[in-house]
Amino acid sequence: MQQDKMIRHSLSLATLFGALFLQSYAYAGPIAMAIHGGAGTISKANLSPEQEQAYREKLEEAISAGYAHLKQGGSSVDAVIKAIQILEDSPLFNAGRGAVYTWDETHELDASIMDGRTLNAGAVAGVKTIKSPIEAARTVMDKSVHVMLSGEGAETFAKEQGLETVDNHYFDTDFRLEALKKAKAKLERDKTAWERPENLDYKFGTVGAVALDRQGNLAAGTSTGGMTAKRYGRIGDSPIIGAGTYANNASCAVSATGHGEYFIRYHVAADICARVAYQGLSLQDAANKVVKEVLVDADGSGGVIAVDNKGNIATPFNTQGMYRATVDTDGNITVAIYQPKE
Amino acid sequence: MQQDKMIRHSLSLATLFGALFLQSYAYAGPIAMAIHGGAGTISKANLSPEQEQAYREKLEEAISAGYAHLKQGGSSVDAVIKAIQILEDSPLFNAGRGAVYTWDETHELDASIMDGRTLNAGAVAGVKTIKSPIEAARTVMDKSVHVMLSGEGAETFAKEQGLETVDNHYFDTDFRLEALKKAKAKLERDKTAWERPENLDYKFGTVGAVALDRQGNLAAGTSTGGMTAKRYGRIGDSPIIGAGTYANNASCAVSATGHGEYFIRYHVAADICARVAYQGLSLQDAANKVVKEVLVDADGSGGVIAVDNKGNIATPFNTQGMYRATVDTDGNITVAIYQPKE
Repeated sequence: MQQDKMIRHSLSLATLFGALFLQSYAYAGPIAMAIHGGAGTISKANLSPEQEQAYREKLEEAISAGYAHLKQGGSSVDAVIKAIQILEDSPLFNAGRGAVYTWDETHELDASIMDGRTLNAGAVAGVKTIKSPIEAARTVMDKSVHVMLSGEGAETFAKEQGLETVDNHYFDTDFRLEALKKAKAKLERDKTAWERPENLDYKFGTVGAVALDRQGNLAAGTSTGGMTAKRYGRIGDSPIIGAGTYANNASCAVSATGHGEYFIRYHVAADICARVAYQGLSLQDAANKVVKEVLVDADGSGGVIAVDNKGNIATPFNTQGMYRATVDTDGNITVAIYQPKE
Repeated sequence: MQQDKMIRHSLSLATLFGALFLQSYAYAGPIAMAIHGGAGTISKANLSPEQEQAYREKLEEAISAGYAHLKQGGSSVDAVIKAIQILEDSPLFNAGRGAVYTWDETHELDASIMDGRTLNAGAVAGVKTIKSPIEAARTVMDKSVHVMLSGEGAETFAKEQGLETVDNHYFDTDFRLEALKKAKAKLERDKTAWERPENLDYKFGTVGAVALDRQGNLAAGTSTGGMTAKRYGRIGDSPIIGAGTYANNASCAVSATGHGEYFIRYHVAADICARVAYQGLSLQDAANKVVKEVLVDADGSGGVIAVDNKGNIATPFNTQGMYRATVDTDGNITVAIYQPKE
């Protein structure tokens, strides 16, 4: 009996140590994260020192919030949401407050999120009154049997789920209204104005985040106001799983920003992960191949942020600049705007 | 002088023969095509002989129309459109007339098309009054700077482009209204009813086509009424480039049908082509891997039709049946509904 008890005792201790080991193991993986606030013709000449400082501070605030969550053992999905919500709430970026205007002087917002562990995903397209589109995308992922909801239907769903709604004017900013007026004037003179390089910035400003958490789970999310002066219920790549957003623990997590039509046609986010999974390319090589070769050959401007399941990060873009921040597996935070020096 | 004239004459003859050679070369490639009219719990027990005959005749009519166009040297994009429009116009299929009903007893149609030569693409989502959604998708591809338009905006665009519009009741059929009433009764008793296998057919019935033309160009298109009793502006995989539709001359063309949410999350159409392009798999192996392994493991029901740039055809599905027809490079037309005999 005594021996039996000792064996049981030893087994309990073994179980306890096992559990402790598993827990420490579960928290032992590397963490890493990257965010973007849009790519485009961003140069020192276009940004005042004060503007540049404001962008840098907001990017640092957003990545720090996400990273703090990862450090505490939080999930990559939550870290992505936290970072993106800070960018949505800032008028500096084309997502949430500060979103660009449609042709009709309203705002129509798109967002998506994907969980690399379950390959579950959620997206909303063309929503006008949901304060945080990325939160709505997450609620579609977690609380509906669907992946993608659009327009008034998506808003009805969000309201039923108790998400915060706002008047469409909540998203207003004077400088975006100014940009709309200029864009419309150009487009009324010349319908092809959108295709000319100097007007490319009307398509940019999307925000996004990718993260690897201690449990080895990847996540990616993207939120945007879309294209200045957009019409006809245009949907870009941001709410399209595989185009603007993709995450799979087996390969990588990607969020894109740029000329959305090209990112849909080249299903950029999923293609980068497919090249990692099927061609055995490194994350950097796969991301460079798609952004700096495939998209460049097709005249598709923009960039991506990506992280793989080892915590490697890639942030290639084929424009002058891309607002971005990264935190690597050693905890080094980097904020950058322009092309890296060769 | 005389000699000069002879040289010029010889050169002209050479040019003429060259042009004839080029023309015969341009028409020398193999042609092939496949179409589907949805996958689901289709069995001999569920279909009367008369119903089965009606499906078989309409499938044969559609593939014959597409094939006739390819034989005349027509483009794969046109062949895809011709076949799909015949299926859209038939009340037998869940696309165009005969589309399923939304929760609110309306019809919201989705469609997309992709040109494998240019990787250009067009899609419409949630349109209610456009008679031929696949034609609208093609018009977005050819006549707009966008890839994807949605809702009323897409309808405004279609009207501006002179496409035929109809009252939403044009799409009505009694048997789909009956199906809606049954679905709503089930869903009101049990919100998870959609997840149960016996109700899977509420998600199916999409139509699609893929084709290879004599010039070696691939195209894919898909058109659907979506999911019976859908709400909240739900968008499925059919209008999502990379999910329900994908075409690339370098690999293959795919149109999908099934439980759309899974086809988005696994970006099924583009993944099959990525496995062909990056893993060097045959079309059959790549399509089987995704439909019969990846999707089965994820509980994602449905099937695809696919053709590669040599004219190989694959039509795997993981449901009891899939309405389908193929025409191979020897011109053999096959119409089938049930699982092929082992």
